[in-house]
Amino acid sequence: MAEHVTIVEVGPRDGLQNEPTAVPVEVRIELVRQLAQAGLRSIEVGSFVSPRRIPQMAGTAELLRSLPRFDEVIYGVLVPNEQGALEAVELPIQELAVFASASETFSQRNINCSIDESLDRFLPVMELAQARSIPVRGYVSCVLGCPYEGKVSVRSVVDVSRRLSALGCREISLGDTIGIGTPREASAMVRAAAAELPIDSLAVHFHDTRGQALANILACLDDGVRTIDSSVAGLGGCPYAPGASGNVATEDLVYMLDGLGMETGIDVSAVAAAGDFISRHLGRATASKVARALAVSAKQHSAL
Amino acid sequence: MAEHVTIVEVGPRDGLQNEPTAVPVEVRIELVRQLAQAGLRSIEVGSFVSPRRIPQMAGTAELLRSLPRFDEVIYGVLVPNEQGALEAVELPIQELAVFASASETFSQRNINCSIDESLDRFLPVMELAQARSIPVRGYVSCVLGCPYEGKVSVRSVVDVSRRLSALGCREISLGDTIGIGTPREASAMVRAAAAELPIDSLAVHFHDTRGQALANILACLDDGVRTIDSSVAGLGGCPYAPGASGNVATEDLVYMLDGLGMETGIDVSAVAAAGDFISRHLGRATASKVARALAVSAKQHSAL
Repeated sequence: MAEHVTIVEVGPRDGLQNEPTAVPVEVRIELVRQLAQAGLRSIEVGSFVSPRRIPQMAGTAELLRSLPRFDEVIYGVLVPNEQGALEAVELPIQELAVFASASETFSQRNINCSIDESLDRFLPVMELAQARSIPVRGYVSCVLGCPYEGKVSVRSVVDVSRRLSALGCREISLGDTIGIGTPREASAMVRAAAAELPIDSLAVHFHDTRGQALANILACLDDGVRTIDSSVAGLGGCPYAPGASGNVATEDLVYMLDGLGMETGIDVSAVAAAGDFISRHLGRATASKVARALAVSAKQHSAL
Repeated sequence: MAEHVTIVEVGPRDGLQNEPTAVPVEVRIELVRQLAQAGLRSIEVGSFVSPRRIPQMAGTAELLRSLPRFDEVIYGVLVPNEQGALEAVELPIQELAVFASASETFSQRNINCSIDESLDRFLPVMELAQARSIPVRGYVSCVLGCPYEGKVSVRSVVDVSRRLSALGCREISLGDTIGIGTPREASAMVRAAAAELPIDSLAVHFHDTRGQALANILACLDDGVRTIDSSVAGLGGCPYAPGASGNVATEDLVYMLDGLGMETGIDVSAVAAAGDFISRHLGRATASKVARALAVSAKQHSAL
């Protein structure tokens, strides 16, 4: 029997929040609908952050109220604090997510508080979630490097992961936020985390800033990781702008997993169609190489 | 001691021959010079094919006569037949390459003869090379799939590889011409070849058409392959055109190998500078993600 891999689609949140222009709620709804129909069963659809700070995520409440329901599809939202969680739990969601960092400086600059303070801030979120039996996902950023500090110790990654788990997070997503890691480092980091937390509570989250994402994922699959974050069309950074740093494209990940004989329940062509839909809206070509290849007939390929 | 990996830079040949417009010889010379100075020790600089059929490779003789010499740098050229070899061996070259296919239909369509006929055609090339003590590299195309036939059997790949080796090729480069393979398939193919030929006579050559190249290379490194073809700036297909299918970018490969603790002798920043040079000439951004990331300061990276 083929091994199952769960893909957590983060395009509608981590992807679109990093696009230079805000996408209207009705377009975000259609994107999520297409992703769910393509077979994705875990989709992070938005966040409850300040619309002044991140206008791309404004309207997440309206989005949740309007989203079509699919059996077994988990809609998740990111909440930075109790205020966000209070809003979120009144809406039809199946998961909350909180966001911490393995780097002290990144935590200060990104969410304006220390790592300790961020974990304190999550306490009321966890209590709210527990009271409603809503599972919580914990993100750990900068797991293979920090834009301010450079190297980040594996010890720090494991500590923050363990603390999020102790707070009640059912899953920890280990994020190479700046896409700087390579397979051996990714593997060492995952193994260290797996030495203290169950491997099936760990997810990996790679940005493809230096083209290493799929190779890193391959290494983490070898270590037993079976939950992987990705973003349709590689959303999260314009591929034509310097410094593009989108997430690994869901299409390219599903293609690799299909080839590895792993089962995801996801139709790669349907994901590519969803990627085409949102890329057209954004006015650019998809960053997924599989999606580009699907658009071309075999005979057009040039010789070696 | 760090393990050594040899990178065979194929950008000036396999890359530029697939670019829509021909690059002047003086620009090709400057590109090769920059690549050699970046530490690349094996560079395929051109081919002796019909300039009517492949105008991008016209002037390879002039290029070879004008190239600066660097200690330990091997300049190689592709020759399709005896006529090309006769021309090449009179010039300052250190390697010849011949090109066969694991797919019968691709052989017919790409070089207008059967696999058997192509190997016969290489006989006088091999004799000429042996008489001059020039090593010959043998390419095998379509090792993981063919644009016309679809699946290509591992048996066929191994047969053609063995026959090229028997003809006297000192190295066999196994090419996923259409960039269709995934790591498990790549690994199975390489292991089958390594069961009949010495592993250090095998190279791998991946196009990144579906974004799988680095993951495939990682799998092949695990199998013991230590020679890898790549192309500066991912030359070989415009990244902004549908159906782009350039080679894996040398910069992205070197970055991964550095992270794996493998030694290449290559300075990734200098390769990126060479990639910037040729990309500017071609009027487009580099397809190397590492090169793009190098161009951006750490502080501009967006948060997870």
